[in-house]
Amino acid sequence: MVPPGYHSPMAGQPLRVAVLGAGTVGREVVRALSTGWGQPDLELSGVAVRDLAKAEAAGMPSSRLTDAPAHLIADEADVVVELMGGEEPARTLIAAALGAGLPVVTANKYVLARHGAELERIARESGAALRYEASVMGGTPILRLLAEDLVGARAHAFEGIVNGTTNYILSEMAASGASYEAALAAAQNAGYAEADPTSDVEGGDAADKLVILARLAFGAWLDRGSVVNRSDHGKPGITGVVAEDLAAAADEGLAIRLLARARRGEERGPIGAAVRATAVDARSGFAGTVGVRNRIEIVTDRLGTITIEGPGAGGAATAAAVLADLAAIQGRRGSTWAHLPPASSATSVAPEPASWFEGPSGARYPVER
Amino acid sequence: MVPPGYHSPMAGQPLRVAVLGAGTVGREVVRALSTGWGQPDLELSGVAVRDLAKAEAAGMPSSRLTDAPAHLIADEADVVVELMGGEEPARTLIAAALGAGLPVVTANKYVLARHGAELERIARESGAALRYEASVMGGTPILRLLAEDLVGARAHAFEGIVNGTTNYILSEMAASGASYEAALAAAQNAGYAEADPTSDVEGGDAADKLVILARLAFGAWLDRGSVVNRSDHGKPGITGVVAEDLAAAADEGLAIRLLARARRGEERGPIGAAVRATAVDARSGFAGTVGVRNRIEIVTDRLGTITIEGPGAGGAATAAAVLADLAAIQGRRGSTWAHLPPASSATSVAPEPASWFEGPSGARYPVER
Repeated sequence: MVPPGYHSPMAGQPLRVAVLGAGTVGREVVRALSTGWGQPDLELSGVAVRDLAKAEAAGMPSSRLTDAPAHLIADEADVVVELMGGEEPARTLIAAALGAGLPVVTANKYVLARHGAELERIARESGAALRYEASVMGGTPILRLLAEDLVGARAHAFEGIVNGTTNYILSEMAASGASYEAALAAAQNAGYAEADPTSDVEGGDAADKLVILARLAFGAWLDRGSVVNRSDHGKPGITGVVAEDLAAAADEGLAIRLLARARRGEERGPIGAAVRATAVDARSGFAGTVGVRNRIEIVTDRLGTITIEGPGAGGAATAAAVLADLAAIQGRRGSTWAHLPPASSATSVAPEPASWFEGPSGARYPVER
Repeated sequence: MVPPGYHSPMAGQPLRVAVLGAGTVGREVVRALSTGWGQPDLELSGVAVRDLAKAEAAGMPSSRLTDAPAHLIADEADVVVELMGGEEPARTLIAAALGAGLPVVTANKYVLARHGAELERIARESGAALRYEASVMGGTPILRLLAEDLVGARAHAFEGIVNGTTNYILSEMAASGASYEAALAAAQNAGYAEADPTSDVEGGDAADKLVILARLAFGAWLDRGSVVNRSDHGKPGITGVVAEDLAAAADEGLAIRLLARARRGEERGPIGAAVRATAVDARSGFAGTVGVRNRIEIVTDRLGTITIEGPGAGGAATAAAVLADLAAIQGRRGSTWAHLPPASSATSVAPEPASWFEGPSGARYPVER
């Protein structure tokens, strides 16, 4: 009998892996599967891309390329790796694969944050595994830590720097006095920010990751639309932060960081969650987290506060997380949430901070000490 | 058929848990098993103590107390929890239980650091599981992280503050200018140091933990005697640190921390390991780790540097780690090293630091920036 969450290939055959998308992470995964730092019993069956010529120019194996992802999934896959990003067609392809009983590995935080509850329902019904370690903190195993390692403890709250781009920009501004625009341009030059940085700098990416973390920490998929991503100054994410505010904060022993924070005081109680440019103690671990690094602190009942730090992104590290999930699927370890009860749904209410720091620009930042 | 690492109780019966030792952690574990925050299918069968009257006075259930641990193991145990500490009789009892096919959960870093290779051999031969998450960093799941979560990546090196007592003393000395003796007395008053603090302050406890971490990070049990626990100033651990050295270090932008460091550049290559009072950048994460907290940084090939921080000790948190290991044994997840190949043995060569900081006392501290 085939255990749940495991699609049965032909006996004795390697698992055929269909990769959707050939961006930075997709190319690393394809390279790993082709050169054997994946498991020997994983076989690349195809790579679905939008632009065949561009993918070939980027070194993707031409004999494996296709622009028909649905056909690749239907005909040549025992497991699907979705690395296209964005909402569609990724959501539809993930849902279709899971519905057909095929396990899926994805790094798609946008889809998970908006359709996680639906995808979990489909996966539970079909018995196919859905794993997504690569969606938060690149290769740092934060999801395994939350879902598997905090055995017997309950998380009350977590807060974190989960977006490397914005942390790089804030660190640069504080270190050099650069304007937001200049620091953003520096981040783009360094390859840390996209040409269109909207989802990073407005806090959308951090809010997506908050929803993914909250499902594992609190057992509920939050309504993504209910997660606030602006402070009291009206502008979302870090787009309202000016150098003068950072300097004034430093004078008061504070640093500004984009923090994703969520709290659920009681089991099944209300969840307060928000992503905000926040004033933190300049001697704190968050202030000490500079550049593109990420840091998440998890407050538990029995284990105290546990913190994990690591690179927020990077193609090779994120690809390693994808391969670790593939190994877990081979090992029949089920979905990322396998050790947890089925999730409920919840709506976040943005918490009211105890105090605010008001910068010279008039912007107000919640203070967390 | 009974899978390896799982002792078969009578069908349908709860697992009978024999607890050896009723110190701080032992009492918490007994309380948890008695009041049901353990799994419902775990049953406390007995508590072995040296002094029956003292244990009863401490609230241990008199009907379960015994001063005959070997009989308790032989007659009434499906799983053994060893929390006596120290070398004997703990080592003999653990070895006997494993040899008889009984799974063992222990927090005994002293025994693991000196007899880990032998205990692993016995456990592999009998198929009994040996788990020891509670031996390092209290309830913070550092061993699961190293052994299970860094899938597909190799650790090159790790360094960490793994002893809360000495970190408390060093933080106190730096913050208040207190002498070593005064800070030690303060730690004892606060319950952070034992009446006999030797193994903490001389670095022996940290060296034990280094050996345990190195087995999971590098795949080899280090000869404990080869792990150096003194800096260049002759005195072991932090016993040679004086307040004047801390003040002079601060003037140069440095802080002193007791760091356990280990490096294995190549797979199967030589291992360099040492526990030393070390000068670190005052703005670093290690300098920012104050009081009894612990912090370990793991340098990997594919995942970058991953850091985990948490409380270094605490009865409730450490007991939670013991209960998590019991749950893993119930779940037939095998030994702490279950996801790793069998260990080899190795001898450490203490690395020569690139540079030293010399304090006014004449003591020299290796500098790590």
